[in-house]
Amino acid sequence: MNEVLIVGEDICQQVVGQGDAFAAVEAVFAAMHRGEARNFPVVREALGHAEALYGFKSGFDRAGHVLGVKSGGYWPGNIERGLTNHQSTVFLFDPDTGQLSALVGGNYLTAVRTAASSAVSIAYLARKDAKVLGMVGAGHQSTFQLRAAAAQRAFEKVVAWNPHPEMLPRLAAVAEELGLDFEAVSPQELGAQADVIITITSAYEPLLLADWIRPGTHLACMGTDTKGKMEVDPTLLARATVFTDEVAQSVTIGEAQHAVAQGLVRADDVTPIGAVINGSHPGRAQDADITLFDGTGVGLQDLAVASVAVQLASQHGLAVRAAL
Amino acid sequence: MNEVLIVGEDICQQVVGQGDAFAAVEAVFAAMHRGEARNFPVVREALGHAEALYGFKSGFDRAGHVLGVKSGGYWPGNIERGLTNHQSTVFLFDPDTGQLSALVGGNYLTAVRTAASSAVSIAYLARKDAKVLGMVGAGHQSTFQLRAAAAQRAFEKVVAWNPHPEMLPRLAAVAEELGLDFEAVSPQELGAQADVIITITSAYEPLLLADWIRPGTHLACMGTDTKGKMEVDPTLLARATVFTDEVAQSVTIGEAQHAVAQGLVRADDVTPIGAVINGSHPGRAQDADITLFDGTGVGLQDLAVASVAVQLASQHGLAVRAAL
Repeated sequence: MNEVLIVGEDICQQVVGQGDAFAAVEAVFAAMHRGEARNFPVVREALGHAEALYGFKSGFDRAGHVLGVKSGGYWPGNIERGLTNHQSTVFLFDPDTGQLSALVGGNYLTAVRTAASSAVSIAYLARKDAKVLGMVGAGHQSTFQLRAAAAQRAFEKVVAWNPHPEMLPRLAAVAEELGLDFEAVSPQELGAQADVIITITSAYEPLLLADWIRPGTHLACMGTDTKGKMEVDPTLLARATVFTDEVAQSVTIGEAQHAVAQGLVRADDVTPIGAVINGSHPGRAQDADITLFDGTGVGLQDLAVASVAVQLASQHGLAVRAAL
Repeated sequence: MNEVLIVGEDICQQVVGQGDAFAAVEAVFAAMHRGEARNFPVVREALGHAEALYGFKSGFDRAGHVLGVKSGGYWPGNIERGLTNHQSTVFLFDPDTGQLSALVGGNYLTAVRTAASSAVSIAYLARKDAKVLGMVGAGHQSTFQLRAAAAQRAFEKVVAWNPHPEMLPRLAAVAEELGLDFEAVSPQELGAQADVIITITSAYEPLLLADWIRPGTHLACMGTDTKGKMEVDPTLLARATVFTDEVAQSVTIGEAQHAVAQGLVRADDVTPIGAVINGSHPGRAQDADITLFDGTGVGLQDLAVASVAVQLASQHGLAVRAAL
């Protein structure tokens, strides 16, 4: 009889704070760069049913002793049923035996691990004196992004733009809660004011042009995770020092795909953020540099935060035990 | 709050009989051939830890409304821990929403779905008057194979061979329980006596030569699921009418891989068993034909039997409910 720990969505929200997620994602990016953690091939399929995209991201982190898979996908009809369109579940296995060890709700964790990813990039790459945070996108994930980013620098103000301006008040509310000024601006004005910019949209064309971005800016481009998607002008990547979570994804399905396809950037020009965390790459060289983090999202991030959720839920006596 | 049904190993063994597995596997092979069910790309990775192989088989059966993944793999050190080396868990999702619907122990189910696969091939392809069943292999799976096969024809006798003859008594005991005579024989003698032959080994060279097989024999080759494995002489496939669960797997990782590589058989010569079940291929044309089923094992088989396990466990009030 194998005992499985079950950590539901509610418990994940209760126990996993953004600091926990930051530490977990930082550690796994570092392990990936040291070759101690590896993502397996991604499965992603159109079901031909309910217009759903379904698939798996999996991997093994030998350093963290974490093996598992996040399964789920995108069901566009869910919103009418009162469910979130993105549905994820994380399964963790004992790397020593292959037995299922935990079942973890993945919806909240996906949001915090994505926010932790851009936060790690800001911690390592943004100018220390950054004051203005620019937000491009105001969907479900944007508030998680804003909260995690705000903890990394002494920001004073948020400037924001969204294709649908009626969604901006939810970002404004979070900025207010965090004690930050808030201004809705045009994308061009956003580039002119922001020291750090997070893009978190599903765009297929550049929302920010290269000339709008000031020297010294750090960008975290978090929305592009599929062939064809694009958030910023590809020529910006040629001008910037480019970092990513996983180079193989960055140059094929990430924000760098277009700059690489156009010959503006080579895969060798893209540095894994783990190299900066591990100290083998200096990160930002000068205050006037533009740094750009291409956050594509890897399975190991999901597994890392799910593993933390299981540990914390167990410590608090909140994990449910089931026999399998 | 999402409700998940948990059906553990014990419950699976209690509720899923070989007849249930047969019906589920037969139905999904038929759905695959009609284009209503599809296996997704298989992930299979060497972990570089505990000498383990780990991966996923997944798919969607629109006809059966079954979506899911079997995860797990092979941990050679498990036996010393009192665990089976093959560890599998099946996860089912609601195809309409993507939410996890069930968690099902996969070890017993893997054995019965593999046995159901060869049993389906015997039901559709073996001569009606088959009397002698030949078993090549005597490992964990062999007893499941023998039980499921015995239900398909009025067999009178089992002849068996195994590279390690000391393992044969376990097959002999099952044969006795089923009221069948049993004889341990050489592989050549096995070919001379058997009307139906099941091979279920991990061999990398032919255990049966083509000349040893009599006209009218049906073979179910169930052991080869990886590049390099081989159970029978490739020239036998040129002489036989070849069927399989999934052609793409048969010609790359199944028993047919060698005959195809040697130019003895083309992919077009291999018929999905679903075509026979659906009536669009006649199956065995003449009593004197040799038929050969290349059972490679597909994720949809696992999902089909797991779905039946959930239904039966629910009907009997044996599924455990958990909130996620």
